[in-house]
Amino acid sequence: MDLTEQQTIRDLYALLEKEELSKLQGQTLSFGGFVRNARSMGQVAFLSLNDGSCFENLQVVYDASKDELSGIRLGCSVQVEGVLVLTPEAKQPFELKASRVELIGKVADDFPLQKKRTSFEFLRTIPQWRMKTNTFNAVFRVRSALAYYIHEYFFQHGFYWIHTPILTANDCEGEGQTFQVTADAKKPAEFFNKDNVHLTVSGQLHVEPFALTYGKVYTFGPTFRAEKSNTVRHAAEFWMVEPEFSFAHLLDDCDLMEDFLKYVVSKTMERCEQDIRFFNERIDSHLLERLKEFIEKPFARVEYRDALKLLEKAKEEGHRFEVEDFRFGLDFGSEHEKYLTEVIFKGPIFLINYPKDIKAFYMKQNDDGETVAAVDLLVPQIGELCGGSERECDYDKLLSRMEELHMNIEAYQWYLDLRKNGSIPHSGFGLGFERLVMLVTGMQNIRDTLPYPRCYKDMLF
Amino acid sequence: MDLTEQQTIRDLYALLEKEELSKLQGQTLSFGGFVRNARSMGQVAFLSLNDGSCFENLQVVYDASKDELSGIRLGCSVQVEGVLVLTPEAKQPFELKASRVELIGKVADDFPLQKKRTSFEFLRTIPQWRMKTNTFNAVFRVRSALAYYIHEYFFQHGFYWIHTPILTANDCEGEGQTFQVTADAKKPAEFFNKDNVHLTVSGQLHVEPFALTYGKVYTFGPTFRAEKSNTVRHAAEFWMVEPEFSFAHLLDDCDLMEDFLKYVVSKTMERCEQDIRFFNERIDSHLLERLKEFIEKPFARVEYRDALKLLEKAKEEGHRFEVEDFRFGLDFGSEHEKYLTEVIFKGPIFLINYPKDIKAFYMKQNDDGETVAAVDLLVPQIGELCGGSERECDYDKLLSRMEELHMNIEAYQWYLDLRKNGSIPHSGFGLGFERLVMLVTGMQNIRDTLPYPRCYKDMLF
Repeated sequence: MDLTEQQTIRDLYALLEKEELSKLQGQTLSFGGFVRNARSMGQVAFLSLNDGSCFENLQVVYDASKDELSGIRLGCSVQVEGVLVLTPEAKQPFELKASRVELIGKVADDFPLQKKRTSFEFLRTIPQWRMKTNTFNAVFRVRSALAYYIHEYFFQHGFYWIHTPILTANDCEGEGQTFQVTADAKKPAEFFNKDNVHLTVSGQLHVEPFALTYGKVYTFGPTFRAEKSNTVRHAAEFWMVEPEFSFAHLLDDCDLMEDFLKYVVSKTMERCEQDIRFFNERIDSHLLERLKEFIEKPFARVEYRDALKLLEKAKEEGHRFEVEDFRFGLDFGSEHEKYLTEVIFKGPIFLINYPKDIKAFYMKQNDDGETVAAVDLLVPQIGELCGGSERECDYDKLLSRMEELHMNIEAYQWYLDLRKNGSIPHSGFGLGFERLVMLVTGMQNIRDTLPYPRCYKDMLF
Repeated sequence: MDLTEQQTIRDLYALLEKEELSKLQGQTLSFGGFVRNARSMGQVAFLSLNDGSCFENLQVVYDASKDELSGIRLGCSVQVEGVLVLTPEAKQPFELKASRVELIGKVADDFPLQKKRTSFEFLRTIPQWRMKTNTFNAVFRVRSALAYYIHEYFFQHGFYWIHTPILTANDCEGEGQTFQVTADAKKPAEFFNKDNVHLTVSGQLHVEPFALTYGKVYTFGPTFRAEKSNTVRHAAEFWMVEPEFSFAHLLDDCDLMEDFLKYVVSKTMERCEQDIRFFNERIDSHLLERLKEFIEKPFARVEYRDALKLLEKAKEEGHRFEVEDFRFGLDFGSEHEKYLTEVIFKGPIFLINYPKDIKAFYMKQNDDGETVAAVDLLVPQIGELCGGSERECDYDKLLSRMEELHMNIEAYQWYLDLRKNGSIPHSGFGLGFERLVMLVTGMQNIRDTLPYPRCYKDMLF
């Protein structure tokens, strides 16, 4: 196998795009992959071969008289060799007139994928097969591209990838929403000599010291929540991106979020153009339009207090909300977020400077004594995509906030000390990666963006 | 903050390299970072500023008469502004004559880092500070670069990154070396409706179905072993890279491993040239030489049976091994691996076609009935860097091997079925990422390659 010289279906489409495919016309090429579709007309058989390189298939035309090929159908794997023929008049722009078709792997009679449409619910029961359907084939290709461009963006902008730990013994304020980890359930503290080892809910605290040394860093890895909720937006295991950078204030954080997201989404739209066209046709007919707006339109920046006033005004003008109490200190419900993004601003907005009591202890306390330098990025259809803040870098202020919240100071002393030695103003945010996959694919259930979803009461293999 | 236009110390060195730094001579620039070193001579003070962008510091010269700057020392954070002056005659090729030096974050008297040399053992007790020392500053920069180039290589070669799960309910043959996970220790099976949820030891089985659909895929994420061993090479939590590809046999696997590793190592050597020069000077004086050989010399390919003969011959010629029993069916000890790589082949070797009884159940059974198509990559000084194999893709052969090993067939039925539906010959390997970091940095203890090491009896925060 030559690792660099293999021809893929993606390459053919790239040449077609550049109007250079004619140089391969009449040449003998070979491909391997799985069969998306097979049919025959008399002695001529057709199969749609997918080699994984892109969404589009290669139409293969061959002599159907050979008995050993009669079993070729959806899910079979094949290798083919033949001559490339351009067919500009036909539905597909080219095809392979195969001189050799080899059936590599048959499918058994009980193979669960059939040509007919299958529900996403059913497909969730067969994560080992569902990526052979059009939808999931595209989902995991888009997921992979998004993940890659996240790294590319940060690398190009001088951010270091820091692998913060999954196992942590940091006291996590007994929220009861973490998974406990033991090597031996009978002696839970034995392995690490720690009482309370659990799976991380965020890499932020662990990555902050690296931001104070390297300037710009990020984590990108799995995080865990043991929430007993069965919604389309929550998984027990999901991936999170968390950049953290020094000499950065709240509005710098917004700048980074916007620049980063637009880069990752636009690169993925380019790379996975075939997939996203499919999603636009089959999953969400407004997808392309919304994504174009997402990468082109500047995100509005709105003070929490101003958002309150806008909602109040909408109410006065006759809009009916289910919850109409907009007092300072309350978090917005999704109907309010929807109204702000979809009706008032018609696009993504940064909501900034939230009341401190609805936000985390580490956020920078603003001079008004009531708010913190927090930001949520709200997106039409999706809701909250990212949340971030400038971090409190004053030792005394942070300590007194932690005392107010009755936190276990001793467990966090190492974190507090970052404010005592070489402290720097710094900011960061967290992006739930699957929400980004949902944004770009139009998929509505987080279970359909994860290769093997792990949710409450729901885990296979 | 302008995210794209910031000048870094790395940029200055890049311009210097291209002999274009003179165009910044006399210009006013500003930098922020932490102080690596500070000293004064009369009214003139010097500080070495590190902004995280590279190993080298910026020498900053300023007027020491200001009282408020007297506290500047190792670990402080500062912002400086001044004029760049080229100093080709001096030890450092340029310096900043600062018109403004602002002390952003002091260090407290009990700050644990001091100018004197500190042992790695001590530094392991302060993972939140040790990245400010020369050695660890370089380690985590190299680690980040290696991780990035891993993704870059696979992306450029058409591999999809598949996020295989951390939590798994797959039966893992009761090896007793996995961590158990529960949301509630009193009702361990409640959350997922599964008895035995644990942390993954490998993503391979979960990634294989994706390889059979997309052709080329990989996982790169944390993996876990609850081994009660306290060696310099084992951690309870570590990162693993696992590519898997279709239409690939054992020698293709070797090709991929070699091409991949040489790419990642050579790109990192280029990117982190300053860091690796430091390691070569301070940590391992043969490092550069060994790395150059690693990327330039073809890796030898040696049959397990031939390696046995070579060791036998060495024994006959008088070399004394501690263990001198080389019968077929035994695994090599590290003394044997060392002799093969360091004495006989003087470089990395692929050892292939191992006895089946010392390898995993999923490896392709060779026609001799005794060996499997397995490969270990052995490297001088490091030992085993990667292990891989062609996978058994014949349903009946795989099933009978699993029965021989008394495995729980039912739990693996989904995996077995991959051989029944659209099976394709495929291969893959696993690379313990920290071993690669050790190879490239010369660091001898895995605890010194992980931001927050988690080892037996050893975990902070």
